[in-house]
Order: sequence, then structure tokens, then C-alpha cells
Amino acid sequence: MKSVNKYLINGSFDQVISPLDRGFAYGDGIFRTMRMCNSLPDCWPQHYQKLVADCAAIGIVCPSAELLMSDLQQLFAIDEIAVAKIVITRGDGARGYAPPAITTPMRVVIKSAMPQYKSNQLVNGVNLHLCDLKIAHQPKLAGIKHLNRLENVMARMEWHDETIFDGLLLDQQGGVIECTMSNVFARVGNTLMTPDLSQCGVSGITRQRIIGLATVLKLNVVIANISLDELLQADEVVICNSLFGAFQVSKIGNTIMPKQGLAKTIRSVLAL
Amino acid sequence: MKSVNKYLINGSFDQVISPLDRGFAYGDGIFRTMRMCNSLPDCWPQHYQKLVADCAAIGIVCPSAELLMSDLQQLFAIDEIAVAKIVITRGDGARGYAPPAITTPMRVVIKSAMPQYKSNQLVNGVNLHLCDLKIAHQPKLAGIKHLNRLENVMARMEWHDETIFDGLLLDQQGGVIECTMSNVFARVGNTLMTPDLSQCGVSGITRQRIIGLATVLKLNVVIANISLDELLQADEVVICNSLFGAFQVSKIGNTIMPKQGLAKTIRSVLAL
Repeated sequence: MKSVNKYLINGSFDQVISPLDRGFAYGDGIFRTMRMCNSLPDCWPQHYQKLVADCAAIGIVCPSAELLMSDLQQLFAIDEIAVAKIVITRGDGARGYAPPAITTPMRVVIKSAMPQYKSNQLVNGVNLHLCDLKIAHQPKLAGIKHLNRLENVMARMEWHDETIFDGLLLDQQGGVIECTMSNVFARVGNTLMTPDLSQCGVSGITRQRIIGLATVLKLNVVIANISLDELLQADEVVICNSLFGAFQVSKIGNTIMPKQGLAKTIRSVLAL
Repeated sequence: MKSVNKYLINGSFDQVISPLDRGFAYGDGIFRTMRMCNSLPDCWPQHYQKLVADCAAIGIVCPSAELLMSDLQQLFAIDEIAVAKIVITRGDGARGYAPPAITTPMRVVIKSAMPQYKSNQLVNGVNLHLCDLKIAHQPKLAGIKHLNRLENVMARMEWHDETIFDGLLLDQQGGVIECTMSNVFARVGNTLMTPDLSQCGVSGITRQRIIGLATVLKLNVVIANISLDELLQADEVVICNSLFGAFQVSKIGNTIMPKQGLAKTIRSVLAL
């Protein structure tokens, strides 16, 4: 029964999103996407911690873990592998940017099908488009997975080629930041580099997990400014997110990238 | 009867906003705010032209002027002076940044009360907070009144002092851009300067109208990079938007600004 419903708003199948919701009006909220299995989200402690941190960064009080878990268990059947998206907004407000003195955050949990990744993406890796759009520096919002994602939308609209899996985003100084829906790692020798996200970009939990697993991977992790040239000259490049884990990058724009199985190693370590 | 309703979605009082709407998911849409009088929006041709331009800039086909005008006339009674907000989103989509191959834009028209401006704002001008948040350069989205307005929200959350009317936003290079809900003009002698908005900021229609009325104002309009120091040393500064027209700025942060009646002149010229 419950698996036919696609979303829950504030824990209810009947509630609707108001046009006065500040998430709708201004993108005044945050979200996360996670894989569901047996009515449970993978890596829930990390996801919930990031929900709380992102809410706090823009001054929203995150709903309790119990409330969100109850929503997830209402929406997802025990036998389904699917994707949960949790959106938390500042709730309704009058017209104008100033939030009301008292706000009541709204939560939406949406179910969608798990993407069907292809075996050649696992075996051979994926191709990246080099985006023309350069992501803007905004230190006050950097790292947060907020609802202002028009840059990602505009970047994603740059390609229609179905052989391209994601788009690599640089900043306006030419530094590598992320992809439209994933974070980036580059291995150079025994060093695993990932872009500094203090100025822009989304700091995903899979990126954080990989950083934390450095010793298991027997690599030194360095968070740094990485130029496009440095990325293209790396020994290998992987991208990661909460749904696919890690994919080897086989091509960036027209540049064919070397591969030595780092994504496969990371996937096996992530599943520990 | 009709004046009791607060909003219309796709021309209907019964329709709701889907959690799959891309305006809600990503801020993938645009909006405008306008003053309604006698069931008609002030400066409708300019507002509609800007709706079309902003939609086009992010690849949305704007609903027809007839459809939007019909919505407005359903929602606003002949005898009320109120505020109309028109929101146009890319419509529903599956999860992921790529828009569906075929999209059906959604339109929302929202009614709210006209702000009650105080006579001393008209006579003595208004105070501006100098925002700590610096607005990010994003030339691909500059000028567009899109739904990604978290910068404005975060900037507006910087002050609670009710004597402050708006917040002045600089860019990361220290250049003056706009206020959170208005555009800025500075007069220096016979020159009326307004910030260049090719890198960031919202290019409002009242700003555009004032630029177009330069000859009536007997001023040379210059669109330029303006530093904060230049602004503070101007002969007078005004801010403008579609609801209040123009207000003299009497204070920016702790700096008291000279006033010679430019806002009053602009208001009278705008009402021509």
C-alpha cells in the first residue's frame, strides 16, 4: 500500500506545499538525496548530521531524526531499493526576504526510483562534460546543499549527449570544484586530492566518508585548490555521490584519463 | 468574493504546487512583484517584457500576457490596491538537474497587502544597513530575477533594527551592486550613476524606467562600477523598486547622506 505514495509533506499524505513556502519563494531551504534499502537510508547518521549542519548554516532548526525516520518508514516499503530525497525549508512567510519572527520549518520526503547504472559505468568509468558555466564563489553558502541550484541546472542543460554522465564545474579562477551531482577526487601517486570547498560547491557526505577512509585506502588525503591542468594530469580521477558511491572518470571533455581501479577500491571500502 | 482568495496556480484556485515542481526543488524559475490598482498592474508592458526576458534567459517559455492578465483579473478586485507576485517555474520534473525533454511551465499569482510606507520615509528618506554578505558574480544569471534568492535572505537576516529599510549589497570586489529589494542610483553633479549589473544583481524595471527618463530628469545616466567610497561621497543616493518607486537614502551604515530631493523628482517623473 504505502509504496504507491510518492511523497509526504510534514508527515502527511494530504498536506500540500503553500505558494508562501519560502523554499518555493526563495530556495530558502536545504535537501539531501539518499539510497533506501529495507526502509532504512544508507549512512543515516552522516546524512542526518549534514541535514542538521546545513539547516543551522542558514538558521533553520532541523526536524528531529525520529520524525524524519518515521516519514521514511511510512513512505518506503521494506522490500524496495529506491531513492529518498529530504527537503527542509524555512516554512511559510509573508512576502519579503525577512523571515517571520517565528518560523515552522516544512519537511518533504520524496520517493523516486533508484537510477539504473550500467555495468560499463562500473567497469569502464564515465565521461564528463567540461561545463562552460563557472560556479560562483559565495563563502556564506559554500558547502551547503541548499535549494538554490540554478547554477547546477544551467550547467546540466549544456549537454544532451547520453554518453556523458556528469559535468565538471570549475570556478571563475579556473579551479576544479565538483560535478553537477557529484564530488571529485584525483589521485597523484599516494596522494588523494579533493577540491577545497570553502568558497563554493557542495560538500557531500560520500566525499566526507572517503576523506575519513584515507588510512584504509593507504592514501594521504589533501584538500586543496586543484587546477584543471592538474586534474587532467592526475594518475586517475573518480567522482562520488550517495547513490552510485564512486565511478572512475574515463574522459574529461576530450581528454582520455588513465584508470587504475581507484573507484572500485573506494566502492569496496565504502561498503565496509 | 474573489478578493478573499490569496493565490492562483495555473489559473486555478484548486491546483497545488507539486513537490516535483522544479521551482521548489531547485529555484528553477523567475518572479516579479508589482503594484495592482483597478485590477491592473502598474507598468504591465515593462513587467511582462521582463518576465519574458528572464524566462528566456533560463530556457523557459513564458506564459502569454493574456493568460497572466486573466489570472490577475480573477484574483484582484477592481477597488483594491495590493501587491501581485507572479512566479513562473519550469514545472514538474523527475529527480535530477536535467529538465525533462518536454516541460510545462507552472505559473503562480499571489496577492498580498500593499506595504504601508511611512510619511517620514517619503519626506526624510530611509536608512540602509551595509551588508556583510558580499554578492557573488555569476554572469550567466546576472540581472535575472530568478528564484535563487538565498543571498538576499541571508543578507536580510543581518539586521533586526526596524529603522533600517533595506541593506546595501556590495560584490566581493567591494563594488556597489544593489539593495536586497531595490536598485541604487547615485547623483554626482549632473550625472546619475547606477551599478553595472552584468556580473550579478537584479536589473529591475524601475531602474530601467529611471534610466529611460534621464532626459526628463536632465541628468546624464552612466552605468558603471561604483565603489562604496564613491557612493558615500555622492551628492545624493536613491533606491528604487516597483512598489515604492524611489526613496531618498538618508544614511548608509553610519554615514549620513546629503539629500536634495532627487527621490521626490524621480517619483513625480515615474508617475508621468
